Amino acid sequence: MVFASDNWSGASEKILAAFAEAAACGGPAYGEDALTNAAQARFNEVFEREVAVFFVASGTAANALALSAYARPGGIIFAHKQAHIAADEAGAVEFFSAGNRVAALPAIAGKISPDGVADALGRSSERDVHHGRPIAVSLTQTTEYGAAYSVDEVSALSDVAKSRGLAVHMDGARFANAVVGLGVAPADLTWRAGVDVLSFGGTKNGCFAAEAVVFFDPAAARDFAFARQRAGQGFSKNWFIAAQFDAYLQDDHWLGLARHANRMAGRLAESIALSGSARLALRPDGNEVFAVVCKRDDARLRALGTVYHPWPTDGFAGLVEIGADECVIRLVTSFQTTAEDVDRFAALL
Amino acid sequence: MVFASDNWSGASEKILAAFAEAAACGGPAYGEDALTNAAQARFNEVFEREVAVFFVASGTAANALALSAYARPGGIIFAHKQAHIAADEAGAVEFFSAGNRVAALPAIAGKISPDGVADALGRSSERDVHHGRPIAVSLTQTTEYGAAYSVDEVSALSDVAKSRGLAVHMDGARFANAVVGLGVAPADLTWRAGVDVLSFGGTKNGCFAAEAVVFFDPAAARDFAFARQRAGQGFSKNWFIAAQFDAYLQDDHWLGLARHANRMAGRLAESIALSGSARLALRPDGNEVFAVVCKRDDARLRALGTVYHPWPTDGFAGLVEIGADECVIRLVTSFQTTAEDVDRFAALL
Amino acid sequence: MVFASDNWSGASEKILAAFAEAAACGGPAYGEDALTNAAQARFNEVFEREVAVFFVASGTAANALALSAYARPGGIIFAHKQAHIAADEAGAVEFFSAGNRVAALPAIAGKISPDGVADALGRSSERDVHHGRPIAVSLTQTTEYGAAYSVDEVSALSDVAKSRGLAVHMDGARFANAVVGLGVAPADLTWRAGVDVLSFGGTKNGCFAAEAVVFFDPAAARDFAFARQRAGQGFSKNWFIAAQFDAYLQDDHWLGLARHANRMAGRLAESIALSGSARLALRPDGNEVFAVVCKRDDARLRALGTVYHPWPTDGFAGLVEIGADECVIRLVTSFQTTAEDVDRFAALL
Amino acid sequence: MVFASDNWSGASEKILAAFAEAAACGGPAYGEDALTNAAQARFNEVFEREVAVFFVASGTAANALALSAYARPGGIIFAHKQAHIAADEAGAVEFFSAGNRVAALPAIAGKISPDGVADALGRSSERDVHHGRPIAVSLTQTTEYGAAYSVDEVSALSDVAKSRGLAVHMDGARFANAVVGLGVAPADLTWRAGVDVLSFGGTKNGCFAAEAVVFFDPAAARDFAFARQRAGQGFSKNWFIAAQFDAYLQDDHWLGLARHANRMAGRLAESIALSGSARLALRPDGNEVFAVVCKRDDARLRALGTVYHPWPTDGFAGLVEIGADECVIRLVTSFQTTAEDVDRFAALL
Repeated sequence: MVFASDNWSGASEKILAAFAEAAACGGPAYGEDALTNAAQARFNEVFEREVAVFFVASGTAANALALSAYARPGGIIFAHKQAHIAADEAGAVEFFSAGNRVAALPAIAGKISPDGVADALGRSSERDVHHGRPIAVSLTQTTEYGAAYSVDEVSALSDVAKSRGLAVHMDGARFANAVVGLGVAPADLTWRAGVDVLSFGGTKNGCFAAEAVVFFDPAAARDFAFARQRAGQGFSKNWFIAAQFDAYLQDDHWLGLARHANRMAGRLAESIALSGSARLALRPDGNEVFAVVCKRDDARLRALGTVYHPWPTDGFAGLVEIGADECVIRLVTSFQTTAEDVDRFAALL
Repeated sequence: MVFASDNWSGASEKILAAFAEAAACGGPAYGEDALTNAAQARFNEVFEREVAVFFVASGTAANALALSAYARPGGIIFAHKQAHIAADEAGAVEFFSAGNRVAALPAIAGKISPDGVADALGRSSERDVHHGRPIAVSLTQTTEYGAAYSVDEVSALSDVAKSRGLAVHMDGARFANAVVGLGVAPADLTWRAGVDVLSFGGTKNGCFAAEAVVFFDPAAARDFAFARQRAGQGFSKNWFIAAQFDAYLQDDHWLGLARHANRMAGRLAESIALSGSARLALRPDGNEVFAVVCKRDDARLRALGTVYHPWPTDGFAGLVEIGADECVIRLVTSFQTTAEDVDRFAALL
Repeated sequence: MVFASDNWSGASEKILAAFAEAAACGGPAYGEDALTNAAQARFNEVFEREVAVFFVASGTAANALALSAYARPGGIIFAHKQAHIAADEAGAVEFFSAGNRVAALPAIAGKISPDGVADALGRSSERDVHHGRPIAVSLTQTTEYGAAYSVDEVSALSDVAKSRGLAVHMDGARFANAVVGLGVAPADLTWRAGVDVLSFGGTKNGCFAAEAVVFFDPAAARDFAFARQRAGQGFSKNWFIAAQFDAYLQDDHWLGLARHANRMAGRLAESIALSGSARLALRPDGNEVFAVVCKRDDARLRALGTVYHPWPTDGFAGLVEIGADECVIRLVTSFQTTAEDVDRFAALL
Repeated sequence: MVFASDNWSGASEKILAAFAEAAACGGPAYGEDALTNAAQARFNEVFEREVAVFFVASGTAANALALSAYARPGGIIFAHKQAHIAADEAGAVEFFSAGNRVAALPAIAGKISPDGVADALGRSSERDVHHGRPIAVSLTQTTEYGAAYSVDEVSALSDVAKSRGLAVHMDGARFANAVVGLGVAPADLTWRAGVDVLSFGGTKNGCFAAEAVVFFDPAAARDFAFARQRAGQGFSKNWFIAAQFDAYLQDDHWLGLARHANRMAGRLAESIALSGSARLALRPDGNEVFAVVCKRDDARLRALGTVYHPWPTDGFAGLVEIGADECVIRLVTSFQTTAEDVDRFAALL
């Protein structure tokens, strides 16, 4: 069984079919095609307003380019220590923003708090040319620990950020899982809650390569087309992404895919909670399950061919006690995970 | 009929089938999958040696990242004035190299000459901290004017470059068309002729998004994986590019596709030469045909729904006389162009 | 005799005395001192309005940071091919602007023309994400060929630039020589003629290290303090530059120094014109004299210990005929050049 | 009394006299002058070997350019959280290195430990393209807390760094104070202890603007002259820095100046220790004294015109207990501080 990551999955049949149809004919280059228009219209629908949407090659590109639209010399972006932009993108934010930095905030379950942001802002100044100045807050939805910020939590963070003129970025590599997990409208979870720009991911949830930057204030996007081109993130055959997003967003296909993944995560979590031999590090809101297992079981599960990643234990302080002979493992489900996969894992456990 | 560009085409059936198969299952992320290994092996075969090959999102990314591997502070890259890196990439080379610059060389049919490079090197110095110093020569194969550098021409350019310690980069967005047009081995046209790094394009010739950077000296690639990741050019589902390249390079499929495109270009060129009303600006070596037409014919052809791009006339000085009531148009064929398309265009002309 | 460059000169006695006084006591760091305030007030006086002025370490820094305040992704800056930013700053503009590029315009005597700019703008587009878009025009005052743009010439260039939303930058490394040479008010030659930002140089004209960026629209300077700090161009002992500028601008000292240098250049030019053996390449407006000499004389003068730089002949096309046995030499005077120096050179000639 | 910072001081008489002499005559531009040669020779002497030394405009520039010589894509530099490069340079390291990042290590008295580095290295990998890879360790000598690393401490840190191929950078803004405080040879404290590159500061200790980057392995400096020029950190009148360093290093003038500053700090520390009303946060090794005072005394001292900076208390955890009604103040002495200044402060206290 593979629970390594949702980016190990393939592509959904619907998306594949839509793509194959597009690929048979092609069309005008660099986004002047009908599919790109159609996909953009779907984004407007999903978010219940006009948005400026740009397709890019990867989640890292989405995050770094989105944040660079707000970058200013000396800029500091607040995020969780384990946020993808801080821990897993090789300095892309720093590179694309010509030296803006990511400053870590304390967090529980990957969630930064309004108080944490307020405190950091209190110690920063918009006029301190030596230290630099805050320009943005970035939150991951769902977080790197599988938790979802509620609409109220997003709003509270945005309020603090906005009171000091900071932009709010949401890394939505698993945005669909959050929308489904919380049962809220995409608009409520983003711009109505104060989010300025969203990295909207499709790759982990049924597409094979579909990431977009969604600006809720189109004015902030005025330089983006140039920034994207300069970054080599503009596709000549843009329809190859558009076809994916068009099918992904049609008839709530994206929510259906995420719903399945979340359900599988729930089933997995339940099995773990009932297993006796392992326990949950925290309750999953989306499609990532973190379990505390003893090291012997970890070795045994691996030996039996189960594929997953170990996870640093320090992120769980305050959430769960981890013994010296225990470790934390991350299990990620996807639209392709089956109930049989989950049950087989439970049986092994 | 559409002769706008080869990047208006779709994807070849073989490539699409291979991709669909891969997309059904997925696999390990970030290039740890079997298809990536298989595609890499095919690159070794095609080039008759071990190469370091990296997939990226676009030709712009391939060029900018390839050149940035050789960048040094104050660096200057020599290229034709209309080279894609100089004219069409929004400053990507300058951005990725932290300020290295592209200096234009005089050229005929988009081909820079050994004398041109030698002359530029003669006026530059490796120690002039004010002006900067030459670090690389970049040539486009086939050129932006549809011409191919012969093996001897590439060798002669490399010799001059190497004599001064410069790297040689080849922008091979249409590399397949050059290989077929010249009837030579890929190895002979690249590393055996002194090329250090190649931007190998598949997108224009049957793939939907498949670009690679091929280092012939793997040592020069030591930082590339990090540079790619920092640029947001690393794909989690890397197999989506690998599947394309695997099918593209298998059984000379890529050469077959290019052969067809080149033949259609030849047929088009012949029609134009025989038309009486239009004439060739230069003989095509690949799949791009440049024709001189009178402005009235240009308007008429467009009104009849023919799609192509006008081209600046100044690039043809020394090649063809262009009258005041004439203009140059570019017609590009692809693997999808049919003999009927060509013949209909000829009839309209 | 040394005519190599005005940056071979020392510092004026007045400036040195003012500096020594400041250096004896020191004061608050990072520009919070009284001398910095005093120098800033003098800039306001000189330019007859409130300006935002920032001291930096070098003319290269002034140019690159000034232009980076207007930089946008894909940006293109128009300048003369031999402009310092294009030919002598190792890519600083490209580096500080994260990949904006300098595009060369045709020019006579280093002066770009409104027609040249209009023509370049006509071929560019503000929406062409591939090629990039024009963002600024930069002119050097006096030019690299010793010519001064008149107030009307600056206005005409600004009008064209402004009609397309471009910023106007003036590289005033030798601004004092232009003001004196033209006999106009600094305000008339800059903001009243449409200049947005000026690199104001003191180093070549009596200071030892005093360069400033002067924004005529303080709003454009909103990020500059951070950009300067990030560039390592903020001085803890800022008074060391302030003391120089305070003395430089007091009682028109700067104009007196430039007047002397210009007079010596005039005397030199007259000697050359009357020499019989050499002739002027163009009439100097400031403190740089370009002479056409036969190569034998050039060798003889050097052998006799005269120090100056040879100059590329291609910049003089259309201005003067240069024979095969002739070359162009550049002779630069400064506030320290004496009439005896000039007359000795004339005698040698 | 002013104890705000040593960068509030003026310039020493000797240095001022040497500078004035140089400024009267000037000389060849861009470091081709005799004074630059002389100053470079003095650096060789001081460090008992041939070094590659480059003058730059500020300590920030020295640090950022020095580290950028070792930068690689995805690079991570380890330093103390309050290190100048991490906390006070507005992102200069990130900017000059195209996105390399500074990672904070736990430290006591600003000193990072070999164990801390080893632990961080243990959690990092040279092959992790997502997180990035360690490239350098940077230590500040004396630290931001006024402590000096002993030769053994530097060696131990270098050993760990070198065992993993990392470069070792020393931020020596107060290097003179460390050399005097420890009573060791500059060579022993740097290259003999494994330091690769040193930011050598003169500005805080008697110069008005004299900072240098000193490479102990000249090969590592191969690109530096270009990097410096591109950064606008190359001075045309380079002699203005050379004259300062020439006088600074002659006859151990620099050590004399630092010895005085350190003695004044010692006298201040003793007064505080004996005061009854205040106490030392830690024993000073150089010229910075950190005292714990009650908030009422702090207000009173300020009201009486004493100038100094408050300091964050969190850096002193494990060193001293700080009560709720107490704060930490930083008092910095310089070559200009007098015994009377110190005694007056002691009396006020």
